[in-house]
Amino acid sequence: MQLRHVIVLTAAALGTVAATAQTFKPEDQIKYRQSVMQVTQRSLGALNGMIRGDTPYNKELAVKHAETIANLIAWSGASFGPGTDKGAPTRADARIWSEPDKFKALYDKHIAEAGKLPAAAAGDANTLKAQFAEVTRNCKTCHDDYRSREYRN
Amino acid sequence: MQLRHVIVLTAAALGTVAATAQTFKPEDQIKYRQSVMQVTQRSLGALNGMIRGDTPYNKELAVKHAETIANLIAWSGASFGPGTDKGAPTRADARIWSEPDKFKALYDKHIAEAGKLPAAAAGDANTLKAQFAEVTRNCKTCHDDYRSREYRN
Repeated sequence: MQLRHVIVLTAAALGTVAATAQTFKPEDQIKYRQSVMQVTQRSLGALNGMIRGDTPYNKELAVKHAETIANLIAWSGASFGPGTDKGAPTRADARIWSEPDKFKALYDKHIAEAGKLPAAAAGDANTLKAQFAEVTRNCKTCHDDYRSREYRN
Repeated sequence: MQLRHVIVLTAAALGTVAATAQTFKPEDQIKYRQSVMQVTQRSLGALNGMIRGDTPYNKELAVKHAETIANLIAWSGASFGPGTDKGAPTRADARIWSEPDKFKALYDKHIAEAGKLPAAAAGDANTLKAQFAEVTRNCKTCHDDYRSREYRN
């Protein structure tokens, strides 16, 4: 398996994605972003296992997981469009829609850092570890501020 | 947004992925692969819209969707490991586990063709269309043979 990948995502690109994504029903969009999150978490877990030494560092596999994460975080960032705050059970906090600029700024940073993950994974376990820490810090920042404890409809 | 991507997946690589993926509970693996499928379908739909002319052909976005598809089809192929035939509602047919070699051969082909999709998307709407047809034909082949009409536990 050969993998080479460079992603440089800009706020403008995210805007394009967001504009495209908003043709979906709110309930479908909520389910979609929850699926995106689940798949992302699996790949984050796989990288975490390699960083912790629970599983051997496997560069090909690490890059592939990193690519999945970089790709999916961009789709995730584009999936909180207007009107998708309710329609199916969700933990997405209402503040996402009441302070969209602040939320978008966080996501832009998140997407940019996640975009660096494939290159970091293509180095070694240490370069992966450093960039993984950046990415998961951004995960946590956003979840702390914008993910509710309970699901709501 | 800059995107460059080459994936060449081999059966050996898939084996590695599969070996890693089998540390999960059957119910988690079933939910994971359903999420993978849902996210893949969204990206297939986006490409189909560009091919049909419902939305303008956007090369950057097309490549990004193609990368998501290529990545996720590989994870999907690795998510039907032994013991994951039941544990949560699933339409995955029991034949997947009774004729694993035949199933794996189909998936290897599917993964290989999906791996060519990012390069095809980086061409134009016509190169994308041709490779998209290959990929969706493989989707259909496998769904016809290995996806049940009804969910079972």
